[in-house]
Amino acid sequence: MARDPALFCAPIGVLDSGFGGLTVLRELRRALPLHDFVYLGDSGRAPYGGREVETVLDFSEQCVERLFAEGAALVVVACHTVSSVALRHLQGRYATADRRVLGVTIPAAECAVAASRGRIGLLGTARTVASGTFTTEVRKLSAMAVVERAAPLLAPIVEEGWEETDVGFAAVRHYVESLGNVDTVVLGCTHYPLLRRAFEAALPAGVALLDPAPGVAARLVTWLDRHPGFASPATGSLRCLSTGDPARFAELGARFLGEPLREVEFLAERGGALAPSVRVVPRGQVVR
Amino acid sequence: MARDPALFCAPIGVLDSGFGGLTVLRELRRALPLHDFVYLGDSGRAPYGGREVETVLDFSEQCVERLFAEGAALVVVACHTVSSVALRHLQGRYATADRRVLGVTIPAAECAVAASRGRIGLLGTARTVASGTFTTEVRKLSAMAVVERAAPLLAPIVEEGWEETDVGFAAVRHYVESLGNVDTVVLGCTHYPLLRRAFEAALPAGVALLDPAPGVAARLVTWLDRHPGFASPATGSLRCLSTGDPARFAELGARFLGEPLREVEFLAERGGALAPSVRVVPRGQVVR
Repeated sequence: MARDPALFCAPIGVLDSGFGGLTVLRELRRALPLHDFVYLGDSGRAPYGGREVETVLDFSEQCVERLFAEGAALVVVACHTVSSVALRHLQGRYATADRRVLGVTIPAAECAVAASRGRIGLLGTARTVASGTFTTEVRKLSAMAVVERAAPLLAPIVEEGWEETDVGFAAVRHYVESLGNVDTVVLGCTHYPLLRRAFEAALPAGVALLDPAPGVAARLVTWLDRHPGFASPATGSLRCLSTGDPARFAELGARFLGEPLREVEFLAERGGALAPSVRVVPRGQVVR
Repeated sequence: MARDPALFCAPIGVLDSGFGGLTVLRELRRALPLHDFVYLGDSGRAPYGGREVETVLDFSEQCVERLFAEGAALVVVACHTVSSVALRHLQGRYATADRRVLGVTIPAAECAVAASRGRIGLLGTARTVASGTFTTEVRKLSAMAVVERAAPLLAPIVEEGWEETDVGFAAVRHYVESLGNVDTVVLGCTHYPLLRRAFEAALPAGVALLDPAPGVAARLVTWLDRHPGFASPATGSLRCLSTGDPARFAELGARFLGEPLREVEFLAERGGALAPSVRVVPRGQVVR
């Protein structure tokens, strides 16, 4: 396959509504330690989970366009909400011979079918669950029973840093109970791996906990083997872009990524596109 | 004062980021039972509390413009986040001899100073607390000590209907403890009155709980006495407009308003303005 040589040093773009996708990035970097990555967390407009579909499409288009503008040839949509609702749209709009967009829903369904004995439960955002896309993807692979339940408090609990509190444990217990009789619980939102201890405490004996992120990373490795032009081993660098407070992103993000985040670059929306910008933090009443 | 007679049958507009402002509307309707109201809940784009300031300005402009387009001459900003950040901007942009915009922050500060023995604590959204506007307004009235703390989990807990669960009680206890030694706790977000039982359980003896909504209503009554052209007793009607799922708005909103919500009209954003629209609920992958 003849490809533009410049693409061989292209970073892999990773798109997320905020911090959560850093738990996916962590697995991607573990699997591909010499690849360069550029991560865009739309934390200034998160959470996406309760938003209207049209808004999710608008925002994710802006994120994909920014990542391509940053030099990525391949964008991984780490966010389950975007992947469940907008992946096909993003692929139809942006995928070319030189540019691709991949998601997490099909890998999550494949991992769940491989892990389950027949009764799969998924917890995710309201929007992810309303889409039914995870169930649709399991159906293509298996006749297993699938239950999806929205767990809208879990991402805010993680962002508050309350994973190890009575609030975190009680909320996880309520949501696990809402799934009824399942043998595998899929963490269908990238925030939830930080609640692993609460999930392990809440799950009955014999019920497996599945974080799809390692499976997403393993599939990306084999995808890159089959599509060698889209990214290659380089320096193992990481750039982080965020639409929210960069200082908060660096502090909170380190917990998700499992390593310090040195520098976070700020993006602002200007005329329907995300662009590098200086962030002004106003106090009091704001008049423009 | 010579006024357009048509204004005398204008409804009072009430603006909120979602459902919470219905706890304020409840008090307004109790105080002004024969006035007509039109309520706009921007629930499709809520929560505002963690958003960038520019986004809060954009959204609240659209809401105010829609309420004036619906015939209101007076708009009450029920949302503490919008009132703390954007009220002065909205007043500068929209207030004329015939149109006014009022907020909740100054009434909340006045009520707090009247209730407190000298140490006031306020819980609100991250954006409300970051603005420092409540403290600024208390300072104009008194030298009392003020502590503001963000309580970002409380509004999601109320929207999930978990006010009376172990999760709701534990979260309120943590946030009340974060205020330290205060004698009055101000509910600085319109969701929090639904957590009254959890607050009463968490507050030490002698610490008062203050919901500003009745004070907001009392001040609106005296304001209308001084400004008789902006709204008059009529049929006591209520229209509800929402940018989110009208069925969910009616179901959840009834808990906040304390009475059934018969009909909720849907608004969508089109070209930077909110307009009446038909709501389409897509499932699965969405391609446009």
